[in-house]
Amino acid sequence: MPPRGRCYVEDMRTLFHMPLDPASRLVRIMLAEKGLPAQLVEKRPWDDEDGVLAAVNPALTIPVLMDEPPTGGDVAVCPVSAIVEYLEDAYPNEQLLPSTSAARAETRRLTHWFMDKFDAEVSDNTLRERINRRLMRRGQPDYERLKIGADCLVWHLDYAEYLLDQRHWFAGERYTVADIAAAAQLSCLDYIDLVPWEKFPAVKGWYARMKSRPSLRPIMRDRMDGVPPPPHYDNPDF
Amino acid sequence: MPPRGRCYVEDMRTLFHMPLDPASRLVRIMLAEKGLPAQLVEKRPWDDEDGVLAAVNPALTIPVLMDEPPTGGDVAVCPVSAIVEYLEDAYPNEQLLPSTSAARAETRRLTHWFMDKFDAEVSDNTLRERINRRLMRRGQPDYERLKIGADCLVWHLDYAEYLLDQRHWFAGERYTVADIAAAAQLSCLDYIDLVPWEKFPAVKGWYARMKSRPSLRPIMRDRMDGVPPPPHYDNPDF
Repeated sequence: MPPRGRCYVEDMRTLFHMPLDPASRLVRIMLAEKGLPAQLVEKRPWDDEDGVLAAVNPALTIPVLMDEPPTGGDVAVCPVSAIVEYLEDAYPNEQLLPSTSAARAETRRLTHWFMDKFDAEVSDNTLRERINRRLMRRGQPDYERLKIGADCLVWHLDYAEYLLDQRHWFAGERYTVADIAAAAQLSCLDYIDLVPWEKFPAVKGWYARMKSRPSLRPIMRDRMDGVPPPPHYDNPDF
Repeated sequence: MPPRGRCYVEDMRTLFHMPLDPASRLVRIMLAEKGLPAQLVEKRPWDDEDGVLAAVNPALTIPVLMDEPPTGGDVAVCPVSAIVEYLEDAYPNEQLLPSTSAARAETRRLTHWFMDKFDAEVSDNTLRERINRRLMRRGQPDYERLKIGADCLVWHLDYAEYLLDQRHWFAGERYTVADIAAAAQLSCLDYIDLVPWEKFPAVKGWYARMKSRPSLRPIMRDRMDGVPPPPHYDNPDF
């Protein structure tokens, strides 16, 4: 007999994800912070011939979280912004949004900043240009786009440095989902060794604190065939 | 002496917006549903020489809601997804998100669908191509983009018709912010007479119910110089 209780706990929650997808990483870290196990199923949105992704998300994006919430029923939650709110709603044990409306607004502004603005300006031009193009076997990356993305990254790191010069965590004095969003993006870019940490000491110090959190350990163990990360990738004292 | 109480109520809340901006309309309708007066200040994101927008939103997007929440302090809330959550947080009197985690997840999925996916595929190619280009004095619209946007609109209306064949409101049996998001988009497109209502009877019936809500009346009174809406624009029996 299989250990039914344990199987049930692990099977009740599934995340469709990709290892080097920032939005998927945000959800994995958030699940870990809340102590919620989940079965990870890798799913490339451009390769859905079996229709598994389309059946749960007509927008054909990842991540999608399939869950049985404590109140019963089944639910498929997407996109990432809705997953963040859902996990806070359904599992309030470890709150990752602050306690006041104003502080929650700032946290959501920055979470959106990293998941949408940073994503479109930096990660689309760099991470996806290098990694997804490789996975799709579409040849060499467009170097013009890589250059634009690297320039945007410096602009974003300047803003991050400005914030972290004034605040211990991104949205204020408390660790929040805004820190998770920033770490989800920067950890993917760091995997392809794109982040000039030395020029941004406040960001580097913050990322060292992030890397030492147990919730980031599974992320640090991700490896992609043929694309090894730099040696400092999983070292908190980098 | 001016009537201080009334001035205070009206001055405590300001919305930077544009009349034909779907995200701004979502916030205006939501404020009206909750009975929250706000001073509307028109702000074109591409014309911020005085730095007023940059000071409250470094992403330089609209809408931005400036508020004094009931718990005290000042807050600048953006982007639209954070404003939705903020208004639900700070003013829970008229709830526009449903009561269960699963139903809230579906509402947020569809709100994001209209505010992001629909916006990028339809409104960027049609509404902004015609209206913002005119406001920026950038000449004639790109007819190729207008065609792509019109094709995407039909695909989106097909999906909307499919949903409203099964549900009374977009996210289920309750009126939610997902309906407001859909109406915010479709009302802007209807202003430039782009919506083929007759081919989508369930969507048309739903929009007639939306247009008869008092919260949509201010939206129906919007007029842009030199661009009159079609005669049916503000008629609930269209």
